[in-house]
Amino acid sequence: MNIKPLADRVVIKMTEAEETTKSGIILASTAKEKPQIAEVVAVGPGGVVDGKEVKMELCVGDKVLISKYAGTEVKLDGTEYTILRQSDVLAKIEG
Amino acid sequence: MNIKPLADRVVIKMTEAEETTKSGIILASTAKEKPQIAEVVAVGPGGVVDGKEVKMELCVGDKVLISKYAGTEVKLDGTEYTILRQSDVLAKIEG
Amino acid sequence: MNIKPLADRVVIKMTEAEETTKSGIILASTAKEKPQIAEVVAVGPGGVVDGKEVKMELCVGDKVLISKYAGTEVKLDGTEYTILRQSDVLAKIEG
Amino acid sequence: MNIKPLADRVVIKMTEAEETTKSGIILASTAKEKPQIAEVVAVGPGGVVDGKEVKMELCVGDKVLISKYAGTEVKLDGTEYTILRQSDVLAKIEG
Amino acid sequence: MNIKPLADRVVIKMTEAEETTKSGIILASTAKEKPQIAEVVAVGPGGVVDGKEVKMELCVGDKVLISKYAGTEVKLDGTEYTILRQSDVLAKIEG
Amino acid sequence: MNIKPLADRVVIKMTEAEETTKSGIILASTAKEKPQIAEVVAVGPGGVVDGKEVKMELCVGDKVLISKYAGTEVKLDGTEYTILRQSDVLAKIEG
Amino acid sequence: MNIKPLADRVVIKMTEAEETTKSGIILASTAKEKPQIAEVVAVGPGGVVDGKEVKMELCVGDKVLISKYAGTEVKLDGTEYTILRQSDVLAKIEG
Repeated sequence: MNIKPLADRVVIKMTEAEETTKSGIILASTAKEKPQIAEVVAVGPGGVVDGKEVKMELCVGDKVLISKYAGTEVKLDGTEYTILRQSDVLAKIEG
Repeated sequence: MNIKPLADRVVIKMTEAEETTKSGIILASTAKEKPQIAEVVAVGPGGVVDGKEVKMELCVGDKVLISKYAGTEVKLDGTEYTILRQSDVLAKIEG
Repeated sequence: MNIKPLADRVVIKMTEAEETTKSGIILASTAKEKPQIAEVVAVGPGGVVDGKEVKMELCVGDKVLISKYAGTEVKLDGTEYTILRQSDVLAKIEG
Repeated sequence: MNIKPLADRVVIKMTEAEETTKSGIILASTAKEKPQIAEVVAVGPGGVVDGKEVKMELCVGDKVLISKYAGTEVKLDGTEYTILRQSDVLAKIEG
Repeated sequence: MNIKPLADRVVIKMTEAEETTKSGIILASTAKEKPQIAEVVAVGPGGVVDGKEVKMELCVGDKVLISKYAGTEVKLDGTEYTILRQSDVLAKIEG
Repeated sequence: MNIKPLADRVVIKMTEAEETTKSGIILASTAKEKPQIAEVVAVGPGGVVDGKEVKMELCVGDKVLISKYAGTEVKLDGTEYTILRQSDVLAKIEG
Repeated sequence: MNIKPLADRVVIKMTEAEETTKSGIILASTAKEKPQIAEVVAVGPGGVVDGKEVKMELCVGDKVLISKYAGTEVKLDGTEYTILRQSDVLAKIEG
C-alpha cells in the first residue's frame, strides 16, 4: 500500500454492499443516506488541522462504519479505496 | 453490542413510531420535523472534538428524545440503530 | 414532568394562539414569522456548549416569547411541548 | 412595559412608515430593503452572548434606524414591537 | 448631520452614477457588481464588534469606493445615505 | 494612482485576455473559472482584519495570477482596475 | 518554473486522465467527483493563513492525489497547472 493520506485523513477499503460480515452486520438500505462498512488501510499523521490539534484514533486494520457519500474514491491496482477525514468516520466495529 | 462510536457520537435504538412508553410519552405527528424516543446503546469517549472538549453526559440505557432526521441509520443483526452526535440529542426522559 | 433537556436547551409549553394573557399580551398575526408566548417547564444544566460556557438565565415558571418555528415539538401525556435552545428565546414577560 | 429581552436583544417600537420625525428624517422607499425609524423601549442585559462579551450601547428612549426585515414582531396591549439583537441596529438618531 | 452609526458602521453619501470626480474617476458599468464613489459623513465608534476589536480607519470627509449593493439606504432631509460596515468599504480615494 | 485600498486589499490592473507575457504565460480558456494575469498597482496596509493579523506579502509592481471572478472592478481615468483581498491572489509570477 | 504560490497554496501538474503510473495507480471514473494524480511543481511558504499557522508538508516532486474539481487551472508555456491549497490535497503517493 503506497497512499499516504495527509493530515487527519484515512484511506479505507469498502466492503461489498449488503455483505454480511463476520460480526453479522448488514447495512440498511433506506431512503436515507446509506452507511457502509470498511477496513482502514492507511492513516494520516494527524497534527494541527485547520488550526486544531487532531489525534488519530484509528489504526490500520480497524473495521469502521462510514456514510456511503463521505470522502473521495480512488482506484489502486484494481481495488477501490476511499479517502476521508477521521471525523467523518461514524464508529469502529469490534468482535 | 459491538459498535464503538467515535468522538462525541452515541448509538441509539429507536422505538416504534407512536409507541406509548412506560412514562406515557407519545410523540407528536405534526407537519414539522418529527422527534422520536430512543434508548442509548453505546456512547463514544468524548474528548477533543473539532478543537473543543466534549464531556459525554449520556449513559448506556438512557432514554432520549431525538429529531427523526438526525444521524445516520445502520442495521445490526436485524435491528435498526442510529449514530448521531450527543449535541443532536434533545433531552433525556426519566421516570 | 420527566423530560430533562440537555445542555442549554429548555422545554416550554406553548399557550393557545391569539390567547390574551394576564398581562394583556396578544400575539400579532402578520405575514412575518409568528412569535408565541410560552411557559418554561424544564431547564437544561447549561455548561460548556459548543466550546462556550452557557449560563442558564431562565427558570421553570418563566413566561417567554419565542418564534413559532423555533425548536422541536414533542407530545407528553397529551400536552404539546417544544424543546429549544435558550438562545432562541427572545424575551421574558413579567407582571 | 413588561417584556424583558434576553441577552443582547432590544425591544423597539417602530414609527409609522413614511412618518416625518422631529429631526426631519423621512425613510426612503426603494427597491432595496427598507429601513425604519424606531424607539427603544427595553434593553437586554448584554453579557456573554455566543461566547463573546457584548456591552449594551443602547438605552430606553433612544431613536434608532433598523432594517425593516430585522427581528421578530410582537403585539403588546395593541401596540406592535420588534425584538432584535443590538448588532442589527444600524444607527442612533439624535437631535 | 444627526445619524450616529453603531459599532463599526459608517454613513456615506453616494455621488451620482457615472459622475466624473475632481480626481477624474469614472465608475465602470459592467455586467458585474457596480462599485460607487461616496463621501463619508459619519463614522461609528468601532470597539469590540462580534468579539473582535475594530479600529476605525475612515474619517468624515473621506472619499471612498463601495460596492453598489453594500449596506442599507436611508433618506435624511431629502438626501440619500447608505449605512454600511467599514469592512465593506473597498478603498479610499485621495487627490 | 490615487486609490488607497483598505485593510488587506490590493488594487490590480488586469492584462488583456489571452495575452502572451514576457515570461511566456498564456492563460487557459476552459469551461472552469478563468484565471488572469495582473499587475499590482496599490497595496493596503494589512494589520488586523476580521480579528486576525494580516501581513501584506505583495508589493506594487508584482505580477500576480487571480481568478477572473475575484474582486470588484473599478474604472479610473479610462483604465480598469480590480480591488480584491490579498488572500484571493493565487500566485506571484517572476522572471 | 516561475509561478510562486502565495500562502498555503501549491502548484501541481496533473497527469493524463486514466494514465497508469509507475506505481500502477489508475484513477476511478465514477459518477462521483473524480480524483486525479499530479506532481507538485511549486510550494507556497505557508505561515499564518486565515489566522492559523500552516506548515507545508509537501515538497516539489511529490506525487499527490487531488479531487478533479479542486483549485484553479492555469496554462504556462503550453502546460496546464492547477493552483490549490495544501489542505485540498488528499494524499501523497510513494513508491
